[in-house]
Amino acid sequence: MSSQPPHPALLIPGPIEFDDAVLQSMSHFSESHVGAPFVNTFSEVLASLRKLFQTTAPDSQPFVLSGSGTLGWDQVAANLAEPGEEVLVLHAGYFADSFADCFETYGVKATQLKAAIGDRPQLDEVEKALKERKYKILTVTHVDTSTGVLSELKELSELVHRVSPETLVVVDGVCSVGCEEIRFDDWGLDVVLTASQKAIGCPAGLSILMVSGRAIEVFKARKTRPTSYFGSWKNWLPIMQNYEAKKPSYFATPSPQLIHALHTSLTQILSRPLEQRFADHKAASQKIKKAVADLGLKQLASKPENQANGMTAIYLPEGIAPPDVLPSLAKKGVIFAGGLHKEIATKYIRFGHMGVSVTDPSRPDINTAIEALKNSLVEVGYKA
Amino acid sequence: MSSQPPHPALLIPGPIEFDDAVLQSMSHFSESHVGAPFVNTFSEVLASLRKLFQTTAPDSQPFVLSGSGTLGWDQVAANLAEPGEEVLVLHAGYFADSFADCFETYGVKATQLKAAIGDRPQLDEVEKALKERKYKILTVTHVDTSTGVLSELKELSELVHRVSPETLVVVDGVCSVGCEEIRFDDWGLDVVLTASQKAIGCPAGLSILMVSGRAIEVFKARKTRPTSYFGSWKNWLPIMQNYEAKKPSYFATPSPQLIHALHTSLTQILSRPLEQRFADHKAASQKIKKAVADLGLKQLASKPENQANGMTAIYLPEGIAPPDVLPSLAKKGVIFAGGLHKEIATKYIRFGHMGVSVTDPSRPDINTAIEALKNSLVEVGYKA
Repeated sequence: MSSQPPHPALLIPGPIEFDDAVLQSMSHFSESHVGAPFVNTFSEVLASLRKLFQTTAPDSQPFVLSGSGTLGWDQVAANLAEPGEEVLVLHAGYFADSFADCFETYGVKATQLKAAIGDRPQLDEVEKALKERKYKILTVTHVDTSTGVLSELKELSELVHRVSPETLVVVDGVCSVGCEEIRFDDWGLDVVLTASQKAIGCPAGLSILMVSGRAIEVFKARKTRPTSYFGSWKNWLPIMQNYEAKKPSYFATPSPQLIHALHTSLTQILSRPLEQRFADHKAASQKIKKAVADLGLKQLASKPENQANGMTAIYLPEGIAPPDVLPSLAKKGVIFAGGLHKEIATKYIRFGHMGVSVTDPSRPDINTAIEALKNSLVEVGYKA
Repeated sequence: MSSQPPHPALLIPGPIEFDDAVLQSMSHFSESHVGAPFVNTFSEVLASLRKLFQTTAPDSQPFVLSGSGTLGWDQVAANLAEPGEEVLVLHAGYFADSFADCFETYGVKATQLKAAIGDRPQLDEVEKALKERKYKILTVTHVDTSTGVLSELKELSELVHRVSPETLVVVDGVCSVGCEEIRFDDWGLDVVLTASQKAIGCPAGLSILMVSGRAIEVFKARKTRPTSYFGSWKNWLPIMQNYEAKKPSYFATPSPQLIHALHTSLTQILSRPLEQRFADHKAASQKIKKAVADLGLKQLASKPENQANGMTAIYLPEGIAPPDVLPSLAKKGVIFAGGLHKEIATKYIRFGHMGVSVTDPSRPDINTAIEALKNSLVEVGYKA
């Protein structure tokens, strides 16, 4: 029986529902950020992240900073690009616009390669773009939280390494790490950035990155200093290396309580083979997507191969808007999110299916949500 | 009886010991960051911060971001200064060096006015510096955590307004907000930045700022865009205004659990007159400083008027180093911090006395710590 009070199931694309043990870890008594017990916990978290990202390369470098997923963009823009350099941003929704805006903030020229709503840039288009101009970095949103569109990381990274081998492959994995397969070493990725509150299953407040040895070398070869202070790897790299080596050191105070919660969630995730975790998310996603189709509804993500496994963005029937159904869903104990893609925000809703709502067989969340969606649509007069 | 398991009392200058109810708030069940319940909580937190900082000016603006105290420096450097501009950094210890380094990261020229170790720049020196050159910003560390030196905010701000009225008065209040008197409006302050884990008594993970209407106008009059993305007030100002007005909006995901804990700690703080809270800290500090003197030990802060009320930096007797006494203190259930000021780090220890360890009469922390310090020194052969 859960130690949490009764509350609606939070099934938005993050924050997600959290496991009792993770939430209890948030209440850990106060510890010094440079004392041995906490330093050991932080060390174990960094080691666990290597497993989660499937990297054994000794020169890969995990970073965990207080912040949010967005701070990962700043870290990439401020540490891996220099003012005046060019980057290619693959666009599959809202978050590419924002990542491009982040680059521009740091004086980096971001060119966007845009797909139609519900799709992702195609490999041949990416190849053409990479051949036209030299880019320091290519960024891809693994799952765009505004559209539920999934990108094909493995094939894309192979393409970049073949066509433009010096270009760094940077993945925005905010809505994918922990629910979509990511093989950091095998796929030749340079950065995967994410946040704590989605499929990793730890409350919000952390910016989490895995960075390749190659990207660290690019950082070290900078001609100019990093253009952020709080997000500077010049400041954080020695701290992360010290924490992992269980040596106390200080740049800015981390959050012991959040690190404890992350320790608990990563321990839970790694207690089972990652393949099973990804298979669970795929199975739940297929079930949800079938239910959506059976209701006669369409997804934003237009093809089976570009549909995320941790969320589903669902077009509402003509004449029905998010405010017509979200309150009715809430009354049935289910919280979905409204649309986020500016051009069509009033036409769709988003259903997040990540973490314990999917992997804990004792939780009724997914079935409850499917039923609630059906009934809420009927209530507003929709007939499938 | 505390719901926390037995553990040593954390008496470093932050993080501090946390109240049970605050820690329990960290375990709050998951909520949407744009749902009405959480938006209401965030709104109340922002309103409470106005009270904590003693500002009723309608154009003052609180900010609460996931991050740490350090991120407050980035917010000041990236939003209030433009590349090439000049700022004057008053130096009373380690944290001025770092704040100056942060400004330089953003292309802002930082001139430091340094005091001898254990002192603060004198008002006549500040006046002279302000008359020699025009500075966009003057920064002062209210309490430097590396030295325990307290600055005189009221007199200093009066001086700046008189001598250089266009210069913004920026206060690093990381180790002072919640334990030292700060009258934001009355003293004409422009920014006070702080973190959650010190005298505010909420776990680490939040960057907290109060910004004057005048500073917001300076921000709005920028010729160049802010040079940070995650720390940009262009991105956060509308979000903070919306949260306070109880309207959902999104730039980056905040941490609902940390905001709940901050809500609890602020509610506790504001349940009593702030004057009483400051008086409690002063009384505890006087008791500790008398005990230190009775032991024949000296403080880094060299004069009664420049000694902080929330921490005490204590020179160890000749021939005794922090590693000689800190483990012995820990065995007695008390955690102090080592030295942090580079030049003399091996010669002193730091005793933090903020928050519930001071204000909760049922906690023996302060008396235990004084006794433990006496006995640990005796154990290593020191005779007062």
